[in-house]
Amino acid sequence: MATTENSNEPLGDIYFEDHVPGSVYHVGSFVVTEEEIIAFAKQYDPQVFHVDPEAARKSSFGGLVASGWHTVVLAMRMIAEHRLHRVKNFGSPGVDELRWLKPVRPGDTLSVRVTVLEAKPSRSKPDRGLITGLVEVLNQNGETVTSWKGMNIVRRRNPGSQES
Amino acid sequence: MATTENSNEPLGDIYFEDHVPGSVYHVGSFVVTEEEIIAFAKQYDPQVFHVDPEAARKSSFGGLVASGWHTVVLAMRMIAEHRLHRVKNFGSPGVDELRWLKPVRPGDTLSVRVTVLEAKPSRSKPDRGLITGLVEVLNQNGETVTSWKGMNIVRRRNPGSQES
Repeated sequence: MATTENSNEPLGDIYFEDHVPGSVYHVGSFVVTEEEIIAFAKQYDPQVFHVDPEAARKSSFGGLVASGWHTVVLAMRMIAEHRLHRVKNFGSPGVDELRWLKPVRPGDTLSVRVTVLEAKPSRSKPDRGLITGLVEVLNQNGETVTSWKGMNIVRRRNPGSQES
Repeated sequence: MATTENSNEPLGDIYFEDHVPGSVYHVGSFVVTEEEIIAFAKQYDPQVFHVDPEAARKSSFGGLVASGWHTVVLAMRMIAEHRLHRVKNFGSPGVDELRWLKPVRPGDTLSVRVTVLEAKPSRSKPDRGLITGLVEVLNQNGETVTSWKGMNIVRRRNPGSQES
C-alpha cells in the first residue's frame, strides 16, 4: 500500500511542481524469498553468497544474502508501480551514493521510502526540471539496508514559470 | 570473451594485491534484445518507454529503451561471470556516480570495461582492502552508455603487509 506524508500530492499526473523538498512518500513493502534471491543472482550476479546457501554459510555473510542490485530493482518496482507511473518523467540521468548498508536475507520484509531533496528548474529547457530524491529501503527492524540519491527529469506543469 | 590489458593478472584466485590502479579489464560483450528489455522492465521498472514499443515511439526517447537498471545488471553479469567469481570478494559497500548517458535500444551490442582506480588497505582489518573501479558500458559505436564507480572489499594475499 502506497501512502504519502505530503497532503498536496495530486491524484492524477504528477509534475515537477508537485515535488516539494521534504515531502516523504512510502511506496510499498514486500517480502524477499530465498527462491527469488537465487533466481535473480543466477541471472545477474552469480556470486556464491547469492546463489549457493551451503557455500554462503561458510562465507563472511554466514548465510545467503540478496544481491545488492536485486534489492535496488525490487525497490525500483515499488517506486514505478506506486508513484512513478503517474510522474511526467523524461527519464533519469543517474544515481549517486548508492550504499549497501546491511545484508538482505530470505524472509526479510522491506519497505521503501522516498524523500524529495531538491527540485531545480532546467535553465536551458523551460518545460522541465531536475528532481533529486533520497530512496531508503528499510527492513522489518527499521534498519536502512540500502539507500541512494536518484535523479529524474520531470515535465513542468507551467513551462518557463518559477511558480507552480 | 574476457581479455585484460594487465599482464600481471593471475590465472586462479584474484586478491587485493592483484588490483593495480590503471589496469583495464574487458569482461565481455552482449546483444540486448527487445524481448528481454520488455521482460526485465515489466518485472522491475514498468515505465511506458521500457515496456510499450508503441507508446515509447511517442515518448521523448522516440522508441523503446532499456531500463537503466537493466543495463547495469547485464553488465554486472559480465563482471561476475568473467572476473568477480575469481576475486576473493567480501562484498560491495556501494557505488558512486552511476550515470545513464545514452539510451540503450533493442539490437545494441554492449561491451563492459573495468578500470582499477584505487586499492586501499583497510586500517582496521589487516586481512582486506577496498578496491574502487570504474565500470564503463560501451555500445557498438564506442559511446559510453552507462558508467559507475564500484567498490569491493577484497581479501589480501598477505594480511597486514603493505607489499604484494
